[in-house]
Amino acid sequence: MIIVMEQGATRSQVDYVVNLIREMGLREHIIVGAERTVVGVIGDDRQKDKDKLENVPGVEKVIPVLAPYKMASREVKKERTIVPLGGRLGGSAGGKKLALIAGPCSVEDRSKLLEIAHAVKESGATGLRGGAFKPRTSPYAFQGLGEKGLEILAEAREQTGLAVVTEVMSIDQVQLVARYADVLQVGARNMQNYNLLLAVGEQSKPVLLKRGLSATLEEFLLAAEYVISRGNGHVILCERGIRTFETYCRNTLPLAVVPEAHRISHLPIIVDPSQGTGHAHLVPDMCRAAVACGADGLLIECHADPAHALTDGAQSITPGVLQSLTGSLRRIAAAVDRVI
Amino acid sequence: MIIVMEQGATRSQVDYVVNLIREMGLREHIIVGAERTVVGVIGDDRQKDKDKLENVPGVEKVIPVLAPYKMASREVKKERTIVPLGGRLGGSAGGKKLALIAGPCSVEDRSKLLEIAHAVKESGATGLRGGAFKPRTSPYAFQGLGEKGLEILAEAREQTGLAVVTEVMSIDQVQLVARYADVLQVGARNMQNYNLLLAVGEQSKPVLLKRGLSATLEEFLLAAEYVISRGNGHVILCERGIRTFETYCRNTLPLAVVPEAHRISHLPIIVDPSQGTGHAHLVPDMCRAAVACGADGLLIECHADPAHALTDGAQSITPGVLQSLTGSLRRIAAAVDRVI
Amino acid sequence: MIIVMEQGATRSQVDYVVNLIREMGLREHIIVGAERTVVGVIGDDRQKDKDKLENVPGVEKVIPVLAPYKMASREVKKERTIVPLGGRLGGSAGGKKLALIAGPCSVEDRSKLLEIAHAVKESGATGLRGGAFKPRTSPYAFQGLGEKGLEILAEAREQTGLAVVTEVMSIDQVQLVARYADVLQVGARNMQNYNLLLAVGEQSKPVLLKRGLSATLEEFLLAAEYVISRGNGHVILCERGIRTFETYCRNTLPLAVVPEAHRISHLPIIVDPSQGTGHAHLVPDMCRAAVACGADGLLIECHADPAHALTDGAQSITPGVLQSLTGSLRRIAAAVDRVI
Amino acid sequence: MIIVMEQGATRSQVDYVVNLIREMGLREHIIVGAERTVVGVIGDDRQKDKDKLENVPGVEKVIPVLAPYKMASREVKKERTIVPLGGRLGGSAGGKKLALIAGPCSVEDRSKLLEIAHAVKESGATGLRGGAFKPRTSPYAFQGLGEKGLEILAEAREQTGLAVVTEVMSIDQVQLVARYADVLQVGARNMQNYNLLLAVGEQSKPVLLKRGLSATLEEFLLAAEYVISRGNGHVILCERGIRTFETYCRNTLPLAVVPEAHRISHLPIIVDPSQGTGHAHLVPDMCRAAVACGADGLLIECHADPAHALTDGAQSITPGVLQSLTGSLRRIAAAVDRVI
Repeated sequence: MIIVMEQGATRSQVDYVVNLIREMGLREHIIVGAERTVVGVIGDDRQKDKDKLENVPGVEKVIPVLAPYKMASREVKKERTIVPLGGRLGGSAGGKKLALIAGPCSVEDRSKLLEIAHAVKESGATGLRGGAFKPRTSPYAFQGLGEKGLEILAEAREQTGLAVVTEVMSIDQVQLVARYADVLQVGARNMQNYNLLLAVGEQSKPVLLKRGLSATLEEFLLAAEYVISRGNGHVILCERGIRTFETYCRNTLPLAVVPEAHRISHLPIIVDPSQGTGHAHLVPDMCRAAVACGADGLLIECHADPAHALTDGAQSITPGVLQSLTGSLRRIAAAVDRVI
Repeated sequence: MIIVMEQGATRSQVDYVVNLIREMGLREHIIVGAERTVVGVIGDDRQKDKDKLENVPGVEKVIPVLAPYKMASREVKKERTIVPLGGRLGGSAGGKKLALIAGPCSVEDRSKLLEIAHAVKESGATGLRGGAFKPRTSPYAFQGLGEKGLEILAEAREQTGLAVVTEVMSIDQVQLVARYADVLQVGARNMQNYNLLLAVGEQSKPVLLKRGLSATLEEFLLAAEYVISRGNGHVILCERGIRTFETYCRNTLPLAVVPEAHRISHLPIIVDPSQGTGHAHLVPDMCRAAVACGADGLLIECHADPAHALTDGAQSITPGVLQSLTGSLRRIAAAVDRVI
Repeated sequence: MIIVMEQGATRSQVDYVVNLIREMGLREHIIVGAERTVVGVIGDDRQKDKDKLENVPGVEKVIPVLAPYKMASREVKKERTIVPLGGRLGGSAGGKKLALIAGPCSVEDRSKLLEIAHAVKESGATGLRGGAFKPRTSPYAFQGLGEKGLEILAEAREQTGLAVVTEVMSIDQVQLVARYADVLQVGARNMQNYNLLLAVGEQSKPVLLKRGLSATLEEFLLAAEYVISRGNGHVILCERGIRTFETYCRNTLPLAVVPEAHRISHLPIIVDPSQGTGHAHLVPDMCRAAVACGADGLLIECHADPAHALTDGAQSITPGVLQSLTGSLRRIAAAVDRVI
Repeated sequence: MIIVMEQGATRSQVDYVVNLIREMGLREHIIVGAERTVVGVIGDDRQKDKDKLENVPGVEKVIPVLAPYKMASREVKKERTIVPLGGRLGGSAGGKKLALIAGPCSVEDRSKLLEIAHAVKESGATGLRGGAFKPRTSPYAFQGLGEKGLEILAEAREQTGLAVVTEVMSIDQVQLVARYADVLQVGARNMQNYNLLLAVGEQSKPVLLKRGLSATLEEFLLAAEYVISRGNGHVILCERGIRTFETYCRNTLPLAVVPEAHRISHLPIIVDPSQGTGHAHLVPDMCRAAVACGADGLLIECHADPAHALTDGAQSITPGVLQSLTGSLRRIAAAVDRVI
């Protein structure tokens, strides 16, 4: 980190800062500039609390130099991580072949889920999404079928070979969900539920980690670091839109995060254009854009009858739209040397 | 809700919408305008999923009319809720007397905590804050003393009479924290951790619910509704800053939420200017502003030696600053017919 | 518009609202719901000030139904507008062929500009960008060469046939810039400089209108409406990134605006991934994403020696990168039935 | 500035950066850390373009150390600037006495304006606001009375002694508006209309500069710097709310900007809670908060009959509300050692 002193900071103020740095087991390097004194810190300060230096008399600001995450960083691991999805179809995220995961927002009943699962498989996907435990903004909204939903998902995997991706909302659900699912999803609202991150880090199924609505990329990677720090390196990042002032969409989908995440991390990153826009009519174009800028996969909400979906009807595309979409996605994937 | 049809929507599209409305057990009221047909919905649609209507052919947009929360709403309960804080000093939030809650970000050791607790009491506060379980952005940062920290807090209450306010991070901590604390805090990052909200709603200690970094006021009240829906009506809302593009502060403190929350809800709302700005030098002025616009209390980080604080040193004021601050706060409180 | 009355609004409050509606020359349609009375307004209220109704006793909120723009709307003009760029190469924006416009942020000197112009042409572009008048955040920064820069741009057009796109910053520059340029650019910071919008609307050269950093899509189209309302229908919208909490990029590039603008407007929309990200290393991927989601063109900053660029070096790609980029763009364009 | 090199940056990459620094007339100071090499720059680099260094091979990021504004900075001028408002009442902004400026959003007709001006004076204000040239989002909305409006404002000053504060929208209006007004307002949408800033900097009347909807504090002060750089040091900053994701208010009013602006600049800063919230019912509480946190004044929209206001009816308070508001403001001002 670098500590910028205020104009006119005294010698003893600088000395006090130097003392604090040494107390942390680090070394200082002082640059006396024309208008400011700057104190550079030598050593690995990733795990030091920089905050306390900001409030010290004579300090103007503290600027971090090292990224605070380590195991999620590309500096530590140069080769890209490929996360196998599970299921019989052999899909994965992070390799040349894209992870295409589709399905309804929530599991509503057995026959509907099985029907959509077959359609999803027909479209060329390797993963099936579907919520059994649903985080809902309102306590009065449909909260999911629970274990019954998980059983239905597992049956769909039996029939189709698709890997099952489903959300886990709390620590006490981790074992249960891991028994049925191939990939455990941690939702956007739980991205900084650190106890849950630790819990999914302590089991062995891959984790699909959704970015929080207002999480910075650094916070996103630190959330992944929580999971990895407990031994589970199979983390798939998922961009699902951020909250901004925009109103034509439910969330703003900031696709530049895809190449930037690839630049600074070895983890795969996929995109959820359904949550990422909130409107079914925007989903196909955003799927195309995501693939074009290098996303390692897509998570798409798909429902045979959106007008009767129990959740997220507004952003679900139909199996027919999914089918024709994958056609153009294949051509775009080819243009960027990927396959679906 | 109101459904605005697209220009040129056909009669059969309108009929289909009407059918969906009736399927929900509601009634329609059609207005044929100059350029648009609008379908008003008659009945309580709070618990209906409006999303699915948005994706129906011919529908342009769906506009909710009723707020989705009910028990948190002022329409249901006109008189203001006063939440007793506990402790021997008889403090509360929501009445004429403000809830002044101060203390360190985290409990670091016994003697330091007891010392600051006495200073906090001297300043006129009725509550002591201090984290035993700390949600940290990095897995490598200090995570709190756990139960040991709770014991220290309880001892501080014994000595000073201050009510203890401390965070609970996961369901399995609820019983433990409730045994020691007077008020259970749910942090900003857990504001939409619904399972945790239900768990604190099922015990009887008051809940201090912090607004999420990017939560709308409606989502904030829905989180409170989760707690209340399980039987615990003692919810104190706490504004702690939102995430915006601003850079001079860690968070943007949007104080207009105070009078607006008072207008639409009966719950008390307090303000945390420490988290709300991230800089100790901004805290006193923002405390004054919060009291001036009607906040029911303040949550202030206070540390005897911020340069050596284990967490949040940058935003902690010293006991000396707290002491002089309460003097001016008393005068401002008087100007708006409140007391400290 | 629709006026939602407060719960318990009185009959006379509703009557007062009805009177205000009739004063505006409109008609009312009252729906008495279970919990709320709602007043629908019949007639074209686009040009009425809805604001004043919000403050009327008994009114809870006012919801607009009709979009406030008209000539920029797809409802008024179904077929897509194709804007010719000028120059000898016959480029345009809005048709099957994409508008590829590249060049330096600012015109720095004659030989450098002519060199880059030839490279831009080689890459397959039809437009040359380059600022002669530069809006700079700091008054001490390079402000552009002024008319001298325009002369150089015109010479580059002579040599290459590329259409010249350059910014106009104030009314008094409009005639001058229009004399040299093929397309007049209105920058993001001037998107709501209404007097300037009217001035470019009164001349006949096409206008490239950049979205303001925090402009909603509706405000963006209203800015276009200002131009069109004065008789100039040749407006090219340009998305250049919005301001959000994100920090890895200078701006957040919200590409979903492309399909949404196409849905509600007939105007072409192009994307500027240079401004839209602020980092050269993100530009190629974002160019690919923009084309994949249907953008009608690209505006790209390109400089032969970014380390010595007078402005925007951080986001300028080199001619070599541009050349190889257009190769992959052609393949993506083909996948969405467009050509470059 | 400080240049952080990538991990593994080569010696020749560092040398190239050093060369670029020396080309700028500055000197380098290299710190070789455990994981990164950092190059500190010695000298005044305020007017250097840092951008171009970011794109240089081996450079990870460039961190500015010196604030880019100078004349607006408190480092250059320690004592606070007091800006006289003009008018016969001797008001000013920046001293112990607050600048209270109220009036309608726009001048609508002579008798209404004179009536409100007298009410504003009765309430204890020293300034009268009112727009003659109105920047409107829609080209079809009321655009103001123009010079006729200025004449009416001048007559109101004759009758009441209030200083007239009114907006200037373009360069060609500057002389005209300066002839009638005491203070020239530059609106939020024009905060980065640099040519206009230069023009108001070249005349002698004080300038009330509104913060742009998404302007950082640094950009805000740089806009002030534009004005001051042309010789007019009488700039009053005005916070009027920023654009965020919040929906209960038209803008989010970030009051912490008040103490922060005081910390880093000598310019006075006032607050506009009418624009800053968009709702009349939030205005009084936000006025109180602004005074409590040290604002140098208030700009308040006030209309005798908001339901018939031509502009901004939703956020205008009545003269009666203004009158009772000033009573509580006096008490709060006293609590922070100010007077109204």
